[in-house]
Amino acid sequence: MVTRSELQLLRSLRDKKHREEHGLYAVEGEKIVGELLAEGHPFEMVYATPAWKGKRTHEIAEADMAKASHFPTPSPVFAVGRITRKPLSAGLLDRGLTLALDGVQDPGNVGTILRIADWFGIDRVVLSPACADLHSQKVIQASMGSFARVPAFVAELGEALAGLKAPVIGCALEGKDIHTLEPLADAVIVIGSEGRGPSAEVSRLVTFSVTIPRLGKAESLNAAVAASIVCDNIRRLSR
Amino acid sequence: MVTRSELQLLRSLRDKKHREEHGLYAVEGEKIVGELLAEGHPFEMVYATPAWKGKRTHEIAEADMAKASHFPTPSPVFAVGRITRKPLSAGLLDRGLTLALDGVQDPGNVGTILRIADWFGIDRVVLSPACADLHSQKVIQASMGSFARVPAFVAELGEALAGLKAPVIGCALEGKDIHTLEPLADAVIVIGSEGRGPSAEVSRLVTFSVTIPRLGKAESLNAAVAASIVCDNIRRLSR
Repeated sequence: MVTRSELQLLRSLRDKKHREEHGLYAVEGEKIVGELLAEGHPFEMVYATPAWKGKRTHEIAEADMAKASHFPTPSPVFAVGRITRKPLSAGLLDRGLTLALDGVQDPGNVGTILRIADWFGIDRVVLSPACADLHSQKVIQASMGSFARVPAFVAELGEALAGLKAPVIGCALEGKDIHTLEPLADAVIVIGSEGRGPSAEVSRLVTFSVTIPRLGKAESLNAAVAASIVCDNIRRLSR
Repeated sequence: MVTRSELQLLRSLRDKKHREEHGLYAVEGEKIVGELLAEGHPFEMVYATPAWKGKRTHEIAEADMAKASHFPTPSPVFAVGRITRKPLSAGLLDRGLTLALDGVQDPGNVGTILRIADWFGIDRVVLSPACADLHSQKVIQASMGSFARVPAFVAELGEALAGLKAPVIGCALEGKDIHTLEPLADAVIVIGSEGRGPSAEVSRLVTFSVTIPRLGKAESLNAAVAASIVCDNIRRLSR
């Protein structure tokens, strides 16, 4: 039996304000929750209807699931995790590869970038506070579970990228041809917001910029697409 | 003065069925319509409210625009284009680079792939009939105008890819390392649907498959992301 106030809490987690207030986030969907449970992801609660074949901590009636769910078509499972926030320790960004997202507001792009970071074994992702919320369902869904595997931090990039020993690499229309990149063991790659590009504060901290050669006429590439091409080019050199 | 039946027609273009019936598609949004008009894109009609600074063929009141618009927040301009369909001529896919989309259903992915094809100067995109409709607003919006610049065809891939001289390249988890690809002047690159991958019929026509090396744990990459990495790797070799 799930109480009415519990249902209200579950439903409220669709809003960032309530996620912050309760320190909780929600994940729905059989595939993604199933995979995360199989990996041992530490959910606080797993609500599921009788149709759900996996493990659960709370059974919930279908009608109640419809009230809790953030989706127009509820899935048979609704998992709740605790938001944990690690501060960026000094020197961390000098080690290994980091993707730094500078105001990437589209949650689909943020989730896709987490999935890309997971594929390419990028060490961490840092999001500026203006990015889409890491714990929104859209980010979690687009990440296909990678949100749980890639260390992610939220930080002001103007502070986090200042004084680094590792190069800070921007993506720009006029930069070094990415096909001529030298091997990089440690680097921070800045992915700017679509449309506006990186902020002035972050631009000042960029060591050099790279360009993905354009042979056609599109004005730009999507932020996640640009991130994936940069990661592939860096990984090609580090193998 | 825009008549009530005209407004109904404009609004009906949100559905594929009505686009097919009238042979028309819609594009909304100041930036995308503005850029297409600047490029000389041949719209049939351009409806705009008094707020729109560009050229128009029909003035429309804001209240009427709200009735016509496919968006919750209408833009000041609503352009209508005529759907033209060129058949795939024999031998065309043997020349240059083609992206063949095999059941890519997400309109955001189809639009993003058109944008990628435009950036990398890919000669054409062929969509299987199961793909998202080329003329849906979501595809057009995600393409950022590239839908108008990249030659696109709809065709059964089982027929279109049979008997080609150019290699048909698949993307798979177990294929030739894309970083060891040889230069290719002519090729068809098949991008499979997310989740299911290429259909059995198309898989039989694949000359060889390529793999994007994975260093981490994500199960797969988004279809548009995979397409972009393949295009960048092919273009690196053809410069």
